[in-house]
Amino acid sequence: MRIALGIEYDGTEFSGWQRLTHGETVQGALERALSFVAAHPVEVTCAGRTDAGVHGRCQVVHFDTEVQRDMRSWVLGACSNLPATVAVLWAQPVEPTFHARFSARSRRYRYRILNRQVRAALEARYVTWERLPLDAVRMHEAAQALVGEHDFSAFRAISCQAAHARRQVLAVSVRREDEQVIIEIEANAFLHHMVRNIVGSLLPIGRGEQPVTWMRELLEGRNREVAGPTAPASGLTFLGPRYETMWQLPAEVSQ
Amino acid sequence: MRIALGIEYDGTEFSGWQRLTHGETVQGALERALSFVAAHPVEVTCAGRTDAGVHGRCQVVHFDTEVQRDMRSWVLGACSNLPATVAVLWAQPVEPTFHARFSARSRRYRYRILNRQVRAALEARYVTWERLPLDAVRMHEAAQALVGEHDFSAFRAISCQAAHARRQVLAVSVRREDEQVIIEIEANAFLHHMVRNIVGSLLPIGRGEQPVTWMRELLEGRNREVAGPTAPASGLTFLGPRYETMWQLPAEVSQ
Repeated sequence: MRIALGIEYDGTEFSGWQRLTHGETVQGALERALSFVAAHPVEVTCAGRTDAGVHGRCQVVHFDTEVQRDMRSWVLGACSNLPATVAVLWAQPVEPTFHARFSARSRRYRYRILNRQVRAALEARYVTWERLPLDAVRMHEAAQALVGEHDFSAFRAISCQAAHARRQVLAVSVRREDEQVIIEIEANAFLHHMVRNIVGSLLPIGRGEQPVTWMRELLEGRNREVAGPTAPASGLTFLGPRYETMWQLPAEVSQ
Repeated sequence: MRIALGIEYDGTEFSGWQRLTHGETVQGALERALSFVAAHPVEVTCAGRTDAGVHGRCQVVHFDTEVQRDMRSWVLGACSNLPATVAVLWAQPVEPTFHARFSARSRRYRYRILNRQVRAALEARYVTWERLPLDAVRMHEAAQALVGEHDFSAFRAISCQAAHARRQVLAVSVRREDEQVIIEIEANAFLHHMVRNIVGSLLPIGRGEQPVTWMRELLEGRNREVAGPTAPASGLTFLGPRYETMWQLPAEVSQ
């Protein structure tokens, strides 16, 4: 039997999603908790791996088990065996052909920038601080160059192991909410560090140091060395994947 | 010379606001940082002391010094000597008759409840978890009984040292934002634990265990033993005081 789970986590104190021999990871903590509930070793597959310090609002995983438990038991049992910074939001039986990664049609990320003169004290785990004033309208306009299918080599980490750099950005927005500038981006899939590298290039545009057209130039140049630096992990939250409605998953992860 | 400061803090790891001989407090950390910048011992007076685990969005303090520093130096100097969970937002010279506590016309608090089946993983420091569904409309209606000047003995901690229990609630609202129920309350001043005790009594009304009229009954009964339990500290944030515009303080703390 295949089961899908929705997972929320605060990535601050984890060495990222993916299980490591050394270092605490979200996958490691989740697999230990589920193995305890299942009373057999459980391995999970996720929709999108996240780096150290990156948060998850509704990560989706699947795993296989022959154990009979009602869905409530998976949620409550896992939650009571997880650290306070990870929670299982829901559990649902799925078709054996469902795959958390390969069935996902798109992924959504949010990046939060605290834009004021003084660093964050409240919610410092969830924002990146930018002291110089940002023009969110300029950033939004510049970001629209990313929409569509492109080669995103300009925003790809050197360590990226993807077979090619073509990805389809479905939507991207930049807006101001009081002291924060919030960037949201949805794509069919992302390259390693792609969101953080895009944010790192939107920042100089927001500060007025680069023209609005710089984003398109960077994209077309396909040269990682010209684009802005990788923005810090703390501001980034993986909102979650989206699946076809045929899988009958919760609305938050359904198209 | 008297200086007013705006202070933001995450109260999770502090033993409250007020300086203690043992235990780290926000006041203690702030006074150490300011003393370092002033190169003489600094004592601050705040608008409203907060308990252990309670956060501050824009606490206001004043202190006196003969040292000449520009306001930017107080902000940056203090910030660089404060732990990551406390920040000085602004500094401003004020009349010697200004008093952070006695000049404040009102104080505002926000209480955030995460209302879903599963405990928080993200932002767990800033919410209180309630598993049973809450009716925010009922809670809002019930809370309106608090508006005006009343004897708030029903919501007063046994440890409260105030001379009397009469306080004037200027406004109170309860609203839902997705998975959260948010309570905001403004009063001329608050008794010890008053907000948390009010929230503790709004919860059974929201769960449908008590009628909407219960809030008025509790208020009129003036009996702390009948009202709900004190809600946890983590959901509570002191948004800040409000002063007359004559003091020319930043808009966030001006009427």
